[in-house]
Amino acid sequence: MTFSYNGSKFHGYQIQNGLRTVQAEIEELLTKLNGMKKVKLIASGRTDALVHAYNQKAHFDFAKEINAEKVRKSLNKLLKGDIYIKSIESVNEKFSARHDVKEKTYEYKINVGEYNPIEADYAYQYCKQLNVSKMIDASKYLLGEHDFSSFVKKDSLKEDNIRNIYKINICLKDDIILINITGNGFLRYMVRNIVGTLIAVGENKLEPIKVKEILEKKDRIYAKKTAPACGLYLKEVRY
Amino acid sequence: MTFSYNGSKFHGYQIQNGLRTVQAEIEELLTKLNGMKKVKLIASGRTDALVHAYNQKAHFDFAKEINAEKVRKSLNKLLKGDIYIKSIESVNEKFSARHDVKEKTYEYKINVGEYNPIEADYAYQYCKQLNVSKMIDASKYLLGEHDFSSFVKKDSLKEDNIRNIYKINICLKDDIILINITGNGFLRYMVRNIVGTLIAVGENKLEPIKVKEILEKKDRIYAKKTAPACGLYLKEVRY
Repeated sequence: MTFSYNGSKFHGYQIQNGLRTVQAEIEELLTKLNGMKKVKLIASGRTDALVHAYNQKAHFDFAKEINAEKVRKSLNKLLKGDIYIKSIESVNEKFSARHDVKEKTYEYKINVGEYNPIEADYAYQYCKQLNVSKMIDASKYLLGEHDFSSFVKKDSLKEDNIRNIYKINICLKDDIILINITGNGFLRYMVRNIVGTLIAVGENKLEPIKVKEILEKKDRIYAKKTAPACGLYLKEVRY
Repeated sequence: MTFSYNGSKFHGYQIQNGLRTVQAEIEELLTKLNGMKKVKLIASGRTDALVHAYNQKAHFDFAKEINAEKVRKSLNKLLKGDIYIKSIESVNEKFSARHDVKEKTYEYKINVGEYNPIEADYAYQYCKQLNVSKMIDASKYLLGEHDFSSFVKKDSLKEDNIRNIYKINICLKDDIILINITGNGFLRYMVRNIVGTLIAVGENKLEPIKVKEILEKKDRIYAKKTAPACGLYLKEVRY
């Protein structure tokens, strides 16, 4: 299943007691459509509160063969407009939307122009100029396979913090800096900590080469501020 | 004063008891900055609930000479992020932000692509193709001075319903149809009723020439459905 959602309307993807979450809202409806037999939704990964998704992917098991297009339409009719199911297709029983991810792309939006209340939930309202070409220089040190411990949320280190970043694209379009990052996987806060560090470079507070050093330290205290969640979009997941 | 706001966060511009409105939020802060002497904000006109503004204009009187830039910064610090004060300048005592309007431009956004939950509050999610060139043809009948009674909200007719539309620009950009309408003034729901009627033309349900006939009927029952408020933006006000 491929779906988009407006992160500003949810307390994140993952189920949390009593709070509105993307997973809870979809699971509830799938369970209804499955004759009240509990359906569990396994996504490519969680997204944090306020983070948006253009193309999140998830799989689920149903009691019986379904007409995917009919289920898709029923879901979109029952959903309240903050999640949209783009497509559903049947997959091999062994397929896991979580474990079989080959590549993910995140996009981050920074408004470097005038504060815009209309987009406050949809781009980081940074509202000062940034040196984009230095940010591009700095981003090159992050490409390839590295231990990204310096960019992981405190207390969220995994056993294995090695990830491979395939591509980083940074461009300025109408006062919005768009940062696209593609890799084989991302750790908690990793994109937002990378963006926060690139912003420090763009502010001329950090030389691009320092990003290489931060990476080598393998300690969160060296990377810069976590960029706000509202600017982050899960853009693509590939299998 | 020039300011922008996110209409999705307010019950419209105008003060209403107990509801969050743009006017109430700004007046309260201006009154504080005026030593608690009540300040009244006179805008170029109201905007309805959920309608956004890029450049609304208003005037107010202060007890004493002010440093406009200081007041602007104080306001932006006190506001909660859903309104942004872009500029403040002093004007002649006789100036009225309401009565001296020469020209206003509204923009309306229609998403004709896939439903987008991330922009559901910021563009009408129409999500089907429309015949843009027929809409452009139809819009030409609205140019110039006319009695717009057919396009006014029921029960909101004024004594004088003659307005002059100077320009209508319609273009398609990345699945979003942008309709820009400039005129000397607009009646209640006038832009949204014009857009709703142009959509009927774009659906091939109404021939462009029919718009001329609807105009000549001077009766709301002939124009089509009011387009939703969320797609509407007050873009410019000129004096």
